[in-house]
Amino acid sequence: MLILMKSNPSKEQVDGVVAKITQLGYKPHLIPGEHDVAVGITGNETALDPETFIALDGVKECIPVTKPYKLAGRAFKKTDTSFQVGNATFGPGSFVVIAGPCAVESEEQTLRIARAVKAAGAAVLRGGAYKPRSSPYAFRGMGVDGLKILKLASKETGLPVITEALDPESLEKVYEYADIIQLGTRNMQNFSLLDLVGKLDKPVMLKRGMSATIEEWLQAAEYIMSGGNTKVILCERGVRSFDTNTRNMVDLGGVLAVRNLSHLPVCVDPSHGTGKRFMVTPMSRAALALGANAVMIDVHDRPAEALCDGPQAILPDEFAELVKTLRQLAPPLGLKLA
Amino acid sequence: MLILMKSNPSKEQVDGVVAKITQLGYKPHLIPGEHDVAVGITGNETALDPETFIALDGVKECIPVTKPYKLAGRAFKKTDTSFQVGNATFGPGSFVVIAGPCAVESEEQTLRIARAVKAAGAAVLRGGAYKPRSSPYAFRGMGVDGLKILKLASKETGLPVITEALDPESLEKVYEYADIIQLGTRNMQNFSLLDLVGKLDKPVMLKRGMSATIEEWLQAAEYIMSGGNTKVILCERGVRSFDTNTRNMVDLGGVLAVRNLSHLPVCVDPSHGTGKRFMVTPMSRAALALGANAVMIDVHDRPAEALCDGPQAILPDEFAELVKTLRQLAPPLGLKLA
Amino acid sequence: MLILMKSNPSKEQVDGVVAKITQLGYKPHLIPGEHDVAVGITGNETALDPETFIALDGVKECIPVTKPYKLAGRAFKKTDTSFQVGNATFGPGSFVVIAGPCAVESEEQTLRIARAVKAAGAAVLRGGAYKPRSSPYAFRGMGVDGLKILKLASKETGLPVITEALDPESLEKVYEYADIIQLGTRNMQNFSLLDLVGKLDKPVMLKRGMSATIEEWLQAAEYIMSGGNTKVILCERGVRSFDTNTRNMVDLGGVLAVRNLSHLPVCVDPSHGTGKRFMVTPMSRAALALGANAVMIDVHDRPAEALCDGPQAILPDEFAELVKTLRQLAPPLGLKLA
Amino acid sequence: MLILMKSNPSKEQVDGVVAKITQLGYKPHLIPGEHDVAVGITGNETALDPETFIALDGVKECIPVTKPYKLAGRAFKKTDTSFQVGNATFGPGSFVVIAGPCAVESEEQTLRIARAVKAAGAAVLRGGAYKPRSSPYAFRGMGVDGLKILKLASKETGLPVITEALDPESLEKVYEYADIIQLGTRNMQNFSLLDLVGKLDKPVMLKRGMSATIEEWLQAAEYIMSGGNTKVILCERGVRSFDTNTRNMVDLGGVLAVRNLSHLPVCVDPSHGTGKRFMVTPMSRAALALGANAVMIDVHDRPAEALCDGPQAILPDEFAELVKTLRQLAPPLGLKLA
Repeated sequence: MLILMKSNPSKEQVDGVVAKITQLGYKPHLIPGEHDVAVGITGNETALDPETFIALDGVKECIPVTKPYKLAGRAFKKTDTSFQVGNATFGPGSFVVIAGPCAVESEEQTLRIARAVKAAGAAVLRGGAYKPRSSPYAFRGMGVDGLKILKLASKETGLPVITEALDPESLEKVYEYADIIQLGTRNMQNFSLLDLVGKLDKPVMLKRGMSATIEEWLQAAEYIMSGGNTKVILCERGVRSFDTNTRNMVDLGGVLAVRNLSHLPVCVDPSHGTGKRFMVTPMSRAALALGANAVMIDVHDRPAEALCDGPQAILPDEFAELVKTLRQLAPPLGLKLA
Repeated sequence: MLILMKSNPSKEQVDGVVAKITQLGYKPHLIPGEHDVAVGITGNETALDPETFIALDGVKECIPVTKPYKLAGRAFKKTDTSFQVGNATFGPGSFVVIAGPCAVESEEQTLRIARAVKAAGAAVLRGGAYKPRSSPYAFRGMGVDGLKILKLASKETGLPVITEALDPESLEKVYEYADIIQLGTRNMQNFSLLDLVGKLDKPVMLKRGMSATIEEWLQAAEYIMSGGNTKVILCERGVRSFDTNTRNMVDLGGVLAVRNLSHLPVCVDPSHGTGKRFMVTPMSRAALALGANAVMIDVHDRPAEALCDGPQAILPDEFAELVKTLRQLAPPLGLKLA
Repeated sequence: MLILMKSNPSKEQVDGVVAKITQLGYKPHLIPGEHDVAVGITGNETALDPETFIALDGVKECIPVTKPYKLAGRAFKKTDTSFQVGNATFGPGSFVVIAGPCAVESEEQTLRIARAVKAAGAAVLRGGAYKPRSSPYAFRGMGVDGLKILKLASKETGLPVITEALDPESLEKVYEYADIIQLGTRNMQNFSLLDLVGKLDKPVMLKRGMSATIEEWLQAAEYIMSGGNTKVILCERGVRSFDTNTRNMVDLGGVLAVRNLSHLPVCVDPSHGTGKRFMVTPMSRAALALGANAVMIDVHDRPAEALCDGPQAILPDEFAELVKTLRQLAPPLGLKLA
Repeated sequence: MLILMKSNPSKEQVDGVVAKITQLGYKPHLIPGEHDVAVGITGNETALDPETFIALDGVKECIPVTKPYKLAGRAFKKTDTSFQVGNATFGPGSFVVIAGPCAVESEEQTLRIARAVKAAGAAVLRGGAYKPRSSPYAFRGMGVDGLKILKLASKETGLPVITEALDPESLEKVYEYADIIQLGTRNMQNFSLLDLVGKLDKPVMLKRGMSATIEEWLQAAEYIMSGGNTKVILCERGVRSFDTNTRNMVDLGGVLAVRNLSHLPVCVDPSHGTGKRFMVTPMSRAALALGANAVMIDVHDRPAEALCDGPQAILPDEFAELVKTLRQLAPPLGLKLA
């Protein structure tokens, strides 16, 4: 932590800050300037809270030096995390393609699409049984029945399944049926849910909040990891922006930033990220070329009939074509499609 | 709903759209242009989902005409909602000042501050017992013990109490002890929690999500209202922005927009909205002059010791001064401080 | 400047940074931590450029301590700037109402509206002769003819005139005819134009850029002031946001931030800021209550015929009503309407 | 244009709108609903201005159907624009690598870097002689001397040169020395400059404004094209965002959106877009895989000494490595490095 004092602080003000630091058991370092004075703090083992100091008399600003996350950051774990789910490896050297319908609508629909994405080369099956919807009047998912259908599709295709949990109740069910638990963008800071997921022994995909900073995202991961669950996949799904030509703004620079700060694998969701079918294929290629560890793609064979997010689903044929291209792009980047 | 076809659509494409509309029991209206064709839809009683049409062949864009909320909007209820909590009226002609510590830290601290804000003219007491915190390592509130302290402070001062619920568990407790249930910015789209709150018979303050549009905010209110609970207070608390000089960007234009679209009372939170003590007083004055129905203010007598958000709390003396000014500004605006 | 080194830096890396600082004639201050090392710099008289250090081996981050503006900031001028234009005082204790048509459309229209706003209590007349327009096909203003009309209206009403300059050519003309030169949001970082305006001896209103930080805004003011022209009025006109219910997001917290950092007077433009007629009156009241020094308001008596921005212009009657209210709100705030 | 009337409009209000449309020579189409009424307009050849109608009595909203740009859009030119500069083809099937120092600092530095990027495979040389800088006290470029150095480097390496013009004065010089004229993000809506550039016969690279929508960007291109200059390259260089881990947020979804709406070639600037050296290589690969037509990269052999933007420049070796990878990724995408 570095504390910047207001211009020309009084001796009393500086002494007060120094005393507070000493009293907390840390070591103050005075940096006197022409008009400005700064005080550095060392000796702390975890991140200090700026609020401890900002309200002291004469203090202008508190600049954290230690990161407010520990388990999620690279400070204590330099090497990339890597783990296996089914045949898919989330980690360096591997690129995982997750695909399936946005929502489970029926057994028939889900099996049909699951077979198609398996044939095309997907390594994990996606599908929503509990759907967070902006409007209370929209289709909110099939619930447990949807989970059972996913299980069936998983058995038939051999693909592990990822699906979203919304609250303690659905989490219990999702844990029972799924291989990876997904937490959505609106729940990134649902701290009670993060606490619960942290106690489970299944991998978690944590989507970035609608306008979360990289730091908030990693702190949310820290909630899960501090509970004991270290198998966290981060997922960039676009952030809120001022432009209406895309549903969200996919922040690939943010993917690079988070991979630099954290050892966790990062997935990109080009479907929810762009919200437009014609953007999904090129954005998936970009995610691979950038160095993301996975993509998660909405596929639907009858998008006009989809109960949810039809406009962003690609057709099974387009998906197969995309996977073919990804396979060609992977080797020069030292990657293998899982 | 208005459907815009892609340039120079084929007859088949237009016919397909018309057929879909007719099949759903609505009425299509063709608007042929030079190169562009649009199809209007009438006959629907609630908002149509753009997704029903966007994936049809030849469709470029779907523009909703009916709003996706009904109970929260003015279409079916023109007059402003107004209700009473203790002596405070949330509704036209009245301006409610809510104040208290950000977090309940001890009985002594809470009673001390409660007495001070009561003396200065607050009509409702605020104080957090369950605190959502970005970091898992930060102080997360006193829980039920905090609620009991709030109850005590309420009894002594006669002020009704508002406090935040985070999840189903804390909601049960908050419902038992508080007069107004607060849902925080991170929970604005926690749809399960909205559903639960919708079934309760106590007023709810719904804070705007970190980067929620006005429409999403009203849809969140619609969740609560569609459950039967119509006593909803909207609370603007600043949105995420690119500038770091304020903690959030207080969107007073958004307050005007939401008051224009909805009959619900709107509160402004200048403390969390700005995050800076010196901004709280002027922003509170601006909220009143703008036409907001309430303000909610962090007050702390020892901000340097506050366990949470000390930098944005104003002192009891500043608060008293502020209320005095608000009382002077109210009459020309036809307002009475509750 | 504070330099943070990457975790566990080598002695060579730290020595390299220290050497660079010493070589530039400044004084390094080492702050060693458990894993992190920071180096403070003192002895510099103006702000250091982070770029001088960031690319050195082992450097993680450079945190500026000295502000990158000097003349615009409070470090060297504590007291608020105040100056007179006609009968209007831009400075503490005074609140200036600027009003008039968005664009000069004809002599008749401008005189008509000028008389109306003068009668209602405006202190400065606004009106655009050169209009920046997003589309090349839109009405771009009357040019010099418009300036002559403004001059005429100024003579008749006795009101000083503010109007926008777009480029070196129009600036020359505007300087000849106007009392205050306006620089628009799209030109806030038109550095060549800022340089030119800095050499003139007429007051300048500098609108905040579409998504400018407070710091960039003050640096733009610094361009003008470093040329010798210190009569700068800052104008908040709303920033770009994700919500489409308002044209821009008026950042009143930003007004407080800039007034805290700078001694310059600050105006609010509720017309361009909100883009909606019904928001102009309440937002103007809020600007006064907040502590802004002025408002600038679009007034038009026939908005449906306006060639530019009709939807945000208020009628002369509404304007008169607004000024009446502002007069009532001013005294409790220690303000006088200019 | 589609006009939405307020709820339950009176017959007079609807008739007023219909009359206005008829009077302008267009054709009105009534779409009556339960409570809402819409009026479609056809018969217009260019985009209508919403302002013509929004202020009419009873009108709630005006929704444009025709795009406000014509020459830049695909409505009147379906096939992608393609043109040659030196050996570089800006257009389909080709991927152009532009590289060089951010700023021209000396003849020696520029020649050294020019040789290196040529050897590595760059097709165009970049380098700034006129630099827009946030602070008036920063290095603002070598001016004409810098242009002469660029010309020299161009002669020696055979690479065409791109460099930025800031204002009418520098534009004249840049036109004389450069092969492609660059307009920076801060000048995207400098309409006078766009007008001037529109009359020149050299290709123009138009960077996207700091927070410009896709539509504003294309309208800015329309300014240039309506002057007669149709050789416009759009350049995405990141937009302003709330996250501070990257300098700007690179909007690759925006690149897809603009390529969908326009036939113009699109370049990505990963250096200014991310502001971080370690992000430049992966972001460049992503740009190619996405389908951009070019990248523009800051290269510097002594970044610690760079006078401008050192932290985002990559080393010549890294650049050579990057070009090698791009060459491997191009064929599966049907691309050839220019």
